[in-house]
This record gives sequence, structure tokens and C-alpha cells, in this order.
Amino acid sequence: MPPDAVLYRDTLLDNVIPFWLQHGIDREHGGIMTCVDRDGSIIDTDKSVWFQGRAGWMFATLYNTIEPRPEWLEAARSCVEFSRAHCSSPGGKMYFSVTREGRALRMRRYVFSEAFAAISYAAYARATGDDRSHNDALSCFDLYLHHSFTPGMMPPKFEPSRSMKGIGALMIAIVTAQELRDNIGDVCVRERTCTEWIDRCIREIERDFFKPEHGAVLECVAPDGGIIDHHEGRTLNPGHAIECAWFIMHEGSLRRDRQLVDLGVRMLDCMWQRGWDTVHGGLLYFTDLFDGPVQEYWHDMKFWWPHNETIIATLLAAKLTGEARYEALHRQVHDWSFKHFQDTEHGEWFGYLHRDGRISSRAKGTMYKGPFHLPRMLWYCWRLLDPAFPSMNRPPEPAPP
Amino acid sequence: MPPDAVLYRDTLLDNVIPFWLQHGIDREHGGIMTCVDRDGSIIDTDKSVWFQGRAGWMFATLYNTIEPRPEWLEAARSCVEFSRAHCSSPGGKMYFSVTREGRALRMRRYVFSEAFAAISYAAYARATGDDRSHNDALSCFDLYLHHSFTPGMMPPKFEPSRSMKGIGALMIAIVTAQELRDNIGDVCVRERTCTEWIDRCIREIERDFFKPEHGAVLECVAPDGGIIDHHEGRTLNPGHAIECAWFIMHEGSLRRDRQLVDLGVRMLDCMWQRGWDTVHGGLLYFTDLFDGPVQEYWHDMKFWWPHNETIIATLLAAKLTGEARYEALHRQVHDWSFKHFQDTEHGEWFGYLHRDGRISSRAKGTMYKGPFHLPRMLWYCWRLLDPAFPSMNRPPEPAPP
Repeated sequence: MPPDAVLYRDTLLDNVIPFWLQHGIDREHGGIMTCVDRDGSIIDTDKSVWFQGRAGWMFATLYNTIEPRPEWLEAARSCVEFSRAHCSSPGGKMYFSVTREGRALRMRRYVFSEAFAAISYAAYARATGDDRSHNDALSCFDLYLHHSFTPGMMPPKFEPSRSMKGIGALMIAIVTAQELRDNIGDVCVRERTCTEWIDRCIREIERDFFKPEHGAVLECVAPDGGIIDHHEGRTLNPGHAIECAWFIMHEGSLRRDRQLVDLGVRMLDCMWQRGWDTVHGGLLYFTDLFDGPVQEYWHDMKFWWPHNETIIATLLAAKLTGEARYEALHRQVHDWSFKHFQDTEHGEWFGYLHRDGRISSRAKGTMYKGPFHLPRMLWYCWRLLDPAFPSMNRPPEPAPP
Repeated sequence: MPPDAVLYRDTLLDNVIPFWLQHGIDREHGGIMTCVDRDGSIIDTDKSVWFQGRAGWMFATLYNTIEPRPEWLEAARSCVEFSRAHCSSPGGKMYFSVTREGRALRMRRYVFSEAFAAISYAAYARATGDDRSHNDALSCFDLYLHHSFTPGMMPPKFEPSRSMKGIGALMIAIVTAQELRDNIGDVCVRERTCTEWIDRCIREIERDFFKPEHGAVLECVAPDGGIIDHHEGRTLNPGHAIECAWFIMHEGSLRRDRQLVDLGVRMLDCMWQRGWDTVHGGLLYFTDLFDGPVQEYWHDMKFWWPHNETIIATLLAAKLTGEARYEALHRQVHDWSFKHFQDTEHGEWFGYLHRDGRISSRAKGTMYKGPFHLPRMLWYCWRLLDPAFPSMNRPPEPAPP
């Protein structure tokens, strides 16, 4: 097995997953707490609803795809049941955060809680054969799609004089549909199958958000795909766009569709250029379409998750294209990330570094950082590299005639 | 005149105010644009409603307190009239941002736009004797107070299981009431005079937010003043609390009330301890009540405005107590700030530095940075030090018997 496959596997199974099983899972009230200090001690008992779904998905997915360890199934069950019992408002829309005991704390405009719940229910349904979780996956994805794609459903952040749409809702629709299809089949939700939702969203991203003439994938555009020449429209999020790129490459790989692979690779190409910090290494959080100053304060910090997503995207591009330059990019982001983010003393990764790679926060988890991007990367990349996972290891499709 | 008075005056009159008059004031549509690059060129034409008020106040206040320069009155008029014409929603509540032409962009939950509009109308009323501005000042302050202090008026960020209140609404009520009283007299709004509002708010801050037993002024507490032992309750904002401290010292100075002065000085003392970075110098943006990690990403950055507020607070404390240690603190924050924030090439200050003092963003203005904290500091400190402003230069009140 290639040495990186061993590193990914061992970091996943012996370090990251045990860290969260030991420190995050709430043995008293169920579910998971993610606001933890460097050594795993709890800083804040409030629970992220995103992470009940994301962690539930991760644990159930390990159970489904690696081996049926009872502790993983139990952790998944704990998150899924906490989510079901405490995380939906009386109207059905899910909260953003709840107390340790499960009392409502905060509702937000958007519906990512629902998408992450959907993938956890789907993976748990596959793990257990449980019909209720199967149905909950469908109804959460339905809610997500309804709020995200029915005009007027989601209260807009801006007034009608500045209508805009974000890439986030499309990306999350793609990956949620991929996970549902993988776990419970190509089900039909809101009159489209998962595959049809994926097609629809990829088409809209390619048409309205990907601007090869500017060498950029935008985060936020006018409803017709026009560039919004204000901070909101110009602010690029390279790690986010690269995450989107690998969702599309992954779809291309499953379908052996070279055009999809090529679309993802081209998105990766331009956003690597936009995001890689040629001074200190690592990926900048935000950059500006026209190289102006970015208004968000943490624009030049290095966060763990864009690095996780770029490690996946470059490895997948290397595998699908066979081109050595993606191997080199993969090595570059892999090495920078393991050198700067890893905590060799207490396990897991730090999440928040200064531009020059020094640690800004010693926290291992927050309402936004928990067992998701890092273990997903380790799980995905291990399987890509290890011949023991044949479905991940089909040779690249032949070049078109 | 002491050298610092000359520095403050010259930086204000020859550098900062000309920078904004030249680059910010919109000669075409009126009002001010604040999103500017290092050299003053416009990055984003969208307008901050806060800054129509803040800049209008600053320009009118210079006109009222320094000398009646027509260009200052004209800049104030431009901001005041743009604000009046374009910044209120049909229901009366003011927006957070509008387009260059004045079309609505974004509405937010809170009502700081209204408070900043109130002080600009009040200062402009004094400059011009204009009744309409006098009345607009009253009605904006009324709106501010109504939304801030009528239970249930402002949609809470959190669900009822985590009720909380912030120090911001009280601080802004104090300074707004101080400005109204100074410019249009001790008017009565919502059944209290300005002075009574100030008393009410200082009492609540002292009772519920100042925790001498913890050496901290909290940003956010339970409705009864209890500590919320979660991120929201533990996150301290030293520069903000120090700004509050000088509002209270200023009130104490006006009233020759030693107890008020002492309250402000004690708040300054503990928040300097909390905020001053003993490693790199300067004031940290956020720290944690129990020294845990802070969740906000920019917690350890150095922003211009906490330094402006601390320069005022330490100088005022030195003046009001006569204690040499406040002179020393003033010198310390003054020197660090002028060394790191000043742009000797294009004028104005940078706003956003890394913890170690290196520049993070070259922008001179954003939706949150424009002609307010820096010129207010220069204006206030110049007058404190220059004997030509006798009302600022009464000797400290005698020690109590």
C-alpha cells in the first residue's frame, strides 16, 4: 500500500476518529459536542446542528465502507437520534444550534442543517436498514431543496435591488444527492432523481458561476450569472470552489464522463492559482476577483478545511487525468497541511492558522469545526490510494477518440 | 502647545479629514463612500448607512467646535441629506447599506444606523439652526431607544432558551444622548431627558456588565446580569469596553462626579489588563473571560478602532486622575498605534493588522471603517491637550474630603 494511504488510514482510525469518540460524543444527553480545546476538553457544551448531521454521517459511513465496528454505529446512532429528537423547530425547519440538553438556541435563514441531517439519515439507514431513517433522509433533502430552490422561500440577505445567488446551495445539493444515491439509491425528491438534481446543479454552476475568461469560480453572482462588481460578488473562496471541483470530478469518475472530469479539473486549475499563497504556502481563505483588498477580516488566514478539500481535489485530479503536475500539487498541499495543522501532542488538527502558518487558535473544535472535513479527506484519500477499495480504483477512462 | 496636541491636530486637519473629503464624498450622488483602497481609490461604491451618520456628525462637529469651514459644512450637508433621502425604509427603520444612488441594499436587526443618524442630525442642527434636523435627531433617537429598549421589539439572535442582552445598545445610547445634549440641549425622548437616559444606561452597565470580581466588563450577559458560560457570554472585547469606559469618564468629567470618573477608570484598568498584548504590543480584538480559546477568527488581530478608543481613554484617565501610570499607558498605546497603523505614504491609517503588527489589508476603508474612530480620537485628544479649548481643560475635580 502506498505510504500516504497508510498515513491517511492511520491518522483517521488511530487519531482523528478516536479523538472525537472520546471527547465529543455526549454519553449523557446523546449527540456530539464540537467546541473543544486543544486536549479535547469541552470549552462550550452548546451543540451544532450541522455537526449532529455531519458526524452522524461520518461515523455511519465508516461503518458502511470500512468495517462494521459497533462503536461507530453507536456514535452514529447517538447523533442521529439527538438530531431527530431536538434539532427541528415546530415548523419543521432545523435549528443551527441547540443546548447540550437539546433546547433550541439559534435558527438561521439557510438550510444546511437539513442537508447534513439528510446525509446522516441516509448513511444510518444503510447501516441499519431502518425505514424511518430512510424516510427522514428523503424529507430532510426535500426541505433543503424546497428552501434552497423555491423562489422566495429563503429570506434574502439583501433587498431586491441586489438580487444574488450563491454557489453553496448548489454544491451542497450535489454532495447531498450523491450521498443519498450512494446509500439509499437514486431516489426521487421534488420531482427529480438524485442524479437529475446533480445534473441540474452542475449545469447551473458551469453556466453561471464558472468564469474561465476571468480564471475564477465565483461564490456569488446575479440571478442571470452576471458578475456583481461589489465586495459580495468579487470575493472568491478558493477552498470552497475546489471542494465543488472535486464533487464534480467525483461525479465524472462515477459516470466515466470525461467532460465532467475536465470541468472539475479546470475549476481546480484556476482556483489553485487564485488561492495558493506563493509567499508562505497554504491556501488563502478569500481572494478578490480583481486582486483588490478583501473586506472579510480573516481573508489571509489558513483554515484546515480548504486544505482538506484541496488534498482530495488534487489527488483525484492526479488519478483521473494521470498528469504528473496534479501529483506535484497534491504533494505540495499535503506536505504544507500535515506540517502546519497537525497536533502531534494531542491528536486531531488545529483549525485556524495565521497566514504564515503559526497557530492562531488552539481550539480543536468550534461550532464550525468537528469530525467532518478532516476525517472525510482521510477516508476518501485512503480509499483512492489503497487497492483494497476496488470501486475507488478503476483506471481512468480512456481519452476520447 | 504640547507636541501631541500638534500631532493630533495636524493629523486630523491636514491628513485624515482631507483624505475623506477628497476620496469619500460623492460629488455626484451625495453622501460618502467608505470602501476605499490604500490610495483612496474607490473599491466598492456601496454606501454604509452608519457612515452617512458618523461622517455627517464628524464634519458638522468640526464645523461647530473647531472653525466654521464651508467645506466641512458642505460635507456634513451632503451626508445628512443623502441619509434623509435614501436611508430609511418605508416603515421608518433605517437600512444598513444602500447603493451609491441610494437604493436599498441591506436591512439588519439592530438600530445603530438610527443612532448615528441622530448624532449627525443633532450636530447639523447646531451648525445650521435648521429645525428639521433638530426634529430628525429626536425622531431617530426615539426609534433607536424604542427598538433597543422595548422588550420584544428587536428580533433576538437566539431563541428564548438563551436570552441575553449586550452592552452595545447601552453604550450607544449613552454617547448618542451625550451628543444630542451637547448639540441641541437636554431634550426629552421617550419620557426621559438625555441625562436621564445616560444615568439609566450607566447604572445598568455597572450593575449587570461590570464584574470587578472577574476583572472584566462583559459584552453580553443574561437579562439579570448573570454570566453566560458559553462563547457568547465569555467573549470579551477590550477595545469596546474601554470605549464605554471613556464615555463614562467623559460624563463624570462634565458633571465633576468623581464616582463616575472612578467607575470608568476601573473599567479601563481591568480591560487594559485583558486586552493589551504583552507579546507584540497593541490591543487584542477579543479575549476570553476564562482565558480559553475565542471562536471568532480575528480574535488576535489588531484593529485601528480599539487603539483609537484606548488612546482617548488613557489620556482622559491621566487628565482626570492626575496619575502618572495613565500617562504611561497613554504613551504606550499612542506609540504602538502611530507606529503600526499610520500610512505615511497615502495618509489615513490602515485598519487591519496581524497580531504582530504587520498589515493584513491595505484597504483604508470598508463598510465598517470610515471617518469616525480615528478623526474622533484626534479631535478629542487635541482638545484635551490644547489650552485653547477651555471647556475640555478644567482641572480635575478635587479629591473627596
